[in-house]
This record gives sequence, C-alpha cells and structure tokens, in this order.
Amino acid sequence: MTVVLLTGFEPFDGASTNPSWQAVVQAERRWSGSARLHTAELPVDFERCGPTLVEALDEYRPDLVVAVGQAGGRAGIALERVAVNIDDARIPDNAGNQPVDVPIVEGGPAAYFGTLPVKACVADLREAGIPAAVSQTAGTFTCNHVFYRLMHELTARRGAGTGPEPRGGFVHIPFAPEQASDGRHPSMAVDVSTAALLRIVDTSLSVTTDRALPGGALH
Amino acid sequence: MTVVLLTGFEPFDGASTNPSWQAVVQAERRWSGSARLHTAELPVDFERCGPTLVEALDEYRPDLVVAVGQAGGRAGIALERVAVNIDDARIPDNAGNQPVDVPIVEGGPAAYFGTLPVKACVADLREAGIPAAVSQTAGTFTCNHVFYRLMHELTARRGAGTGPEPRGGFVHIPFAPEQASDGRHPSMAVDVSTAALLRIVDTSLSVTTDRALPGGALH
Amino acid sequence: MTVVLLTGFEPFDGASTNPSWQAVVQAERRWSGSARLHTAELPVDFERCGPTLVEALDEYRPDLVVAVGQAGGRAGIALERVAVNIDDARIPDNAGNQPVDVPIVEGGPAAYFGTLPVKACVADLREAGIPAAVSQTAGTFTCNHVFYRLMHELTARRGAGTGPEPRGGFVHIPFAPEQASDGRHPSMAVDVSTAALLRIVDTSLSVTTDRALPGGALH
Amino acid sequence: MTVVLLTGFEPFDGASTNPSWQAVVQAERRWSGSARLHTAELPVDFERCGPTLVEALDEYRPDLVVAVGQAGGRAGIALERVAVNIDDARIPDNAGNQPVDVPIVEGGPAAYFGTLPVKACVADLREAGIPAAVSQTAGTFTCNHVFYRLMHELTARRGAGTGPEPRGGFVHIPFAPEQASDGRHPSMAVDVSTAALLRIVDTSLSVTTDRALPGGALH
Repeated sequence: MTVVLLTGFEPFDGASTNPSWQAVVQAERRWSGSARLHTAELPVDFERCGPTLVEALDEYRPDLVVAVGQAGGRAGIALERVAVNIDDARIPDNAGNQPVDVPIVEGGPAAYFGTLPVKACVADLREAGIPAAVSQTAGTFTCNHVFYRLMHELTARRGAGTGPEPRGGFVHIPFAPEQASDGRHPSMAVDVSTAALLRIVDTSLSVTTDRALPGGALH
Repeated sequence: MTVVLLTGFEPFDGASTNPSWQAVVQAERRWSGSARLHTAELPVDFERCGPTLVEALDEYRPDLVVAVGQAGGRAGIALERVAVNIDDARIPDNAGNQPVDVPIVEGGPAAYFGTLPVKACVADLREAGIPAAVSQTAGTFTCNHVFYRLMHELTARRGAGTGPEPRGGFVHIPFAPEQASDGRHPSMAVDVSTAALLRIVDTSLSVTTDRALPGGALH
Repeated sequence: MTVVLLTGFEPFDGASTNPSWQAVVQAERRWSGSARLHTAELPVDFERCGPTLVEALDEYRPDLVVAVGQAGGRAGIALERVAVNIDDARIPDNAGNQPVDVPIVEGGPAAYFGTLPVKACVADLREAGIPAAVSQTAGTFTCNHVFYRLMHELTARRGAGTGPEPRGGFVHIPFAPEQASDGRHPSMAVDVSTAALLRIVDTSLSVTTDRALPGGALH
Repeated sequence: MTVVLLTGFEPFDGASTNPSWQAVVQAERRWSGSARLHTAELPVDFERCGPTLVEALDEYRPDLVVAVGQAGGRAGIALERVAVNIDDARIPDNAGNQPVDVPIVEGGPAAYFGTLPVKACVADLREAGIPAAVSQTAGTFTCNHVFYRLMHELTARRGAGTGPEPRGGFVHIPFAPEQASDGRHPSMAVDVSTAALLRIVDTSLSVTTDRALPGGALH
C-alpha cells in the first residue's frame, strides 16, 4: 500500500496556532484516497525538527512526503523548488537558538531540488481556483531546514531501496485570516489551504513526470 | 421595520464574475436578522450606476445602505471613510466610457464622509478573525462614484425625513481566490467576505456612535 | 513679483532627519527662477503645525504654496489630490498628542481639492525620469492636516483677493535611502526628490489648466 | 596585481538601457583602487551569456568577480547567496529562447553558494545609507544562469590554482528611476547603485571571513 506522510509545524514567534499544522490535521480528516496517510507535527526548533522528521520517516516509511510550513506575507500556496544547506535565523526558534550561517549538514551538498511535480501541482491548483506558484526559496529558517533534511534523507535511502524512490517536497501556505486581521498581509482560509494540500497529494501520487510550464515564480 | 440595502457590482475589466455581487447574494441568503434585507446589482458604468442606485433607494427606502465593490490588490475588508467628487478612470467602464477628472455632481461638495461606524466594524471583524482596516480612499472609478452618489442622496433625503437619518457607506472586498490564482495578489474566500458583510450590517444596525480607535488605515 | 512658499517637516517617529525638509532646503539653494522662493519648516505637531503655516502665509503672502512631507513606503513622488477634514493618528505626534477621528476645522467642509496642476506635474516628472503619480489620500496625520489647513486658508483669502488666486497643494516624497537601508522599503535619493520639487514649482507656475491624463493613481 | 572583473547585462524585455551595465561602466570610471578593474557586458541570451563570461574569465584571470544584474521590483541592493542549476524563463531571452526547467550544467550540483562576504557587504552598505539585503534567490533567468556558470568555473579553476582562490558572486540592483516612472515600483539612482558596487568590491577585497549577522533576507 502506498504511504503518504504530511508534516506541519507547531506555533512560533508568539502565535497560538500554526495554520500549517491545522491544515495537515484537517487534510488527514478529509482524506479519502486509497493511500494510507500519516501526519507528524514538527517543533520549530533547529536541533529537534530534523530528528523528529527522521523518526516519522523511520516509523512510516512513506512513498511520498509533503512537508508544510507557514510563510507569512505570501499570497498563495508556494511549491518550493529547492532546499539550501544553510541555517540563518532572523529570530530565535522556540528553544531560543538563532543559528547564523551554519550548514545544516556539514559537508552536504549546497542544495537539493525537491522531487514533487511542482509545475503540475501549480497548474492543478490554479485550475481549481486556488492561488499558487512555484517558489525559488524556502527561506533559511526551520522550514528550509526540514526541507533540506528531508531531501538529504530521501536521497540516502534511495540508494538502499528496492521499490520506486520515495518523493518529497515542501509547501508553504499563507497566514490564516485571523493571523492577518489588520489587513496588511495576505491570508488564506485554512479550508482552502487544506483543499490545496489534498490536491497536491493527489497530483503527486498520479503525476510521474512534471509538466513543462514556464516560470511563474512568486516574487 | 428596519430596511437594509446591500449593493454589489457586475463583472468588469474582462472578468466573468465580481465577488462583490457574489458576496451580496450569499449574504442575502444567509441573513437571519429582523431587518428586511434587499439587494441591487449595479452596472460598472459611470452613467448608469448612479441612476440604478437611486432607483433602489426610491423603491426600498432603506435605513441602512452598504455598497460593496471589489478592490483587487487589497488584503482585507476595507471600510471606506470618504467619497470624493471626481471621476478619473484608468480603464474604460463596461460602456466604454473613461471620464478623466470630471466632477460626479457639478457644484457638489469636494467629499462626503460615510456614516457607517467604520472603526467599530473594523474592531468587530478583527475580533472575528477577518482581516479588515479603514481605508482613506475608494479610488476614482465607479466604486467611489457610487459611494459619492449614495452619500449625496442620503444627505438630500435627510432634510426631508421625519424618522432617524438613514446611514450609508462603502466596503471594498479583496479578489476572490480564483481571480488571484497566480499567487501574486492577496485574495479572500467569498464565504469570508460574505461573513464580513453580515457582521458589518449587524454592527451598523446596533452601534450608534463609532468607537474611537486610532488610525489603522490600509496602505 | 511672484512669491513661492515651500514647506517641509521636522523629523518625527524617532528619525533624526526628515527628507521633506532636506529637499526643501536644497531646492531653495538650487532655485534659479525669477519668482522669490521662501521656505518654512513645520513642526510634526497637530496643534502647532497649522499656526506655523498660517504665520508663513501671512509673512510671505505667496502666490504658490507647495507643502511637502515624507511618506514612508511610497515608491515615487506623490502629488496629492485631496485633503480631508479629519485627524486620525496611528502614532503620537512630537508633542505626544494622538487625536483620533477629530475634525481639523470644526464645521469645515469634508474635503478640499488641491489646486496644483497635478496631472501636468506627474507627466513632467515622468518625462524627466522621476517616478511620480497622483495620490488620492494624504493620510490622516499631520501631512493631511497641513494640506487641509492650507487649502482652508487659501480659500478664505481667495474671497478677499484682488489679484489672481494663490494656488497650493501637497507633495509626498519617499524615504531617503538611509531611512530604508534594510532594503524592505522603496526610497529616493534626496537629490532626486529635490529635482522633483523644483520641477513641480516650475510646472505649477507655468501651467494654468491641468492636463487631462487618465488615472494613474498610486496604489 | 589583484584583478577584478565586473559584469553587467545588455538591455532586455523591450527596455533601451540596463542599469546593471550603466552602473558597471560608471564604477569602472570612478574606480581609484590599486587593483586592476575590468568589465564585460553580457548578452541576455541563455546560450551566449555563459561563453561570454568564460571568455572574460580566460582573458582577465580575475581574483574577484562581481556579476551584476537588474531585479525589477526590488527596493535595495541584493547580495545573492546561492545559484541553482536550473533555467526556467518566464519570458523569452533576447534570442527568443525560453528554456523551461532545463539544467544549466547537465550533471552539475543542484546549487553553488557565492563566495563574496555578503553579510559584511550588506552591513557596510547600510552604514553608508544604501538600502541592501542578502537575497536567497537570484531567480531562474539569465542572472541566475550567469551566477551558476561563474561559480561552476571558479570551482573548476580552484583545483588548478596555485595562488589564493578567486572569489565571486552576484549582485542584483533595482530599476533605475526612469524605468519606474509610474511610481508603482521601487527604484534607485544609478549613482547610488554605482557607489554600492564600488563598496562591494572594496569590502570583498578586504574582508576574508564574512561577518556573522543574522538573517536579513529580502522578501
């Protein structure tokens, strides 16, 4: 049976909720596909988020991993293209750590590309009326850290595998409306973000070669 | 019985829908208050939108009027503070007219303030988790035109009235998600915009003196 | 002899300089026209900015007044179209006062239109390669207050005059680069803002009827 | 003698000038350091920009390379951190080619980090009052292509070298004011961009270990 892992993050920066975890929980409830769908909540903690992810990978042995995080200021669902080997925190994480210009994996490659069909996902979301775009940077905070660790792990496991290679990627979602109630930042209802995640899982399970659609990056 | 009039606009600028009218229609369906709620769809046409509004005012004799329009690019519900006596169109209206620096009412005052309790509405929406702000400009297209004509009419009728004065104002709502699917502009689910309109009507019917909340204008 | 008055503001909100006053000072130095050009620095103080302006009007009896202020976040020179009769401060002024929803002139009109040829100024600035646009709102802080008081005074004096009516308006300029050094907000070199003010004075002295150019408002 | 190479781009997308090349030309004129400074203008052409860069590297054998490009919409000088191995063009280049999701170097690493002291450069520029920030993405057009090719070449040459390793990176500059005259996008006077490039060269020549300054990415 095909196994899917969705991860979200706990709240950070003083917030009481994180829409990434809310959307992941709702997506699990609404999931009706034939694949088995598991979820994991990751800490916003540079030291602990990687090990927590690896535990979930070990436990569920997923064929597809979609890690999800909140990107305040973004106006749509962002399908991240690339994870870079650097931690550079503008604010402290939930444990009070603020790494600056530290490699995530000492000696690891500068970057990994995600392996979700990001262009196909974007095209599918837009057809469904959900704002979406490919993004060229997942930042340098814990979202990028998890994305890099995920791709590093999947690459390492790839060599050992006998079945088809597991695929993985990272998706940023906008603020929930209640996080942006002063009207100064874009937001997206958690229902809509949830619908987006469900579509991304569906598309990623069914599309084997990404669509060649030009550009379309978020600024 | 208290009478409420909600107006929205027809589609324009090549769009197939206008979320202002969609939200007004949904608000009418979901309305469960004791006041009688009427709606009117206004043309995006500098010559015809004013007369269509006046017809609705004559027909329904509302105690409260909330005119609604779409403001592409805005991230939240915008409670407009002031209507100015000028048409200045960046694009042609649906009839192909593009007035430039033409007064709406020849010899009329430079501006009217709306008479909704905009600060109380903003506070209420934010408490409900809906992005909202006071806005200082409704632009110079048909939205501002309707807002100015509305306040001009209500002011004229005020003198003749025997009951309490009718109140009115203008509310801009963001793009619907499907209008902003490239992820470059903020959007708001029509369900959320509808909930906002219902709350604005409720607040406007119950609040007689606006709350003194500082600033908070949208940029 | 034709007399011109340029006003700028003192620093506020913790800043050590205000580019509006820097540009006005530089404009006076670089002025080579036949008109006599005077300047006045206005306090960022709701109670004192109006009287200081009126003193300068009484002293210089200008034919043209261009009041200038800083608009952080704007990307170009903003030719303001309209001043509204409201003080609504998001932050305290330099005297610690923070009026909320208070009329500037009790019983005054809701708004005044400025009387500079704003469209001609914008066209001229753009031809010179200087970013510029008409703006529909000067906000509700001391800039709008000065603009409203200016137009209120010029209107009152108009009735008494025997010569041609004095003209006046308000111009917002962006942050200076050193105020926006984190790269998150647009800025404009003070040299460029100064050149813009000199052109606006020139255009306002030579153009008697504004050009009919469509829209073009800043968002 | 230390040798520096600055590159800029020719105009593209219908523009008649490209401020990156204008700033590079002005920087060469104003350069008064002891290093020898060379310049090269690169075509906005996915097929030809790489070879043209390599020719200049072969001819001048620089110790430091700063490649410069225009980033419309950015508000400050952007010190790019990382180049990714992908061409993905939203618009055709000057030769009419529009590669979509094509690797720049088949079999090359997913990304290279630049080797300029980007944090020290940003700190120095801000102290000088010039808006600046580290950027996490140089896009996927010819700027990123040149950046990736540059780092690929410098890495290959590093192995063969006997002296200290050549360093290189990419810098994005905002629109020139005349490219943004509608006031809708930020801009920077070419004089200011030129001063920024001169400072970046100075800092890069004198700083051997980058400063550890937190975050500060452009959005």
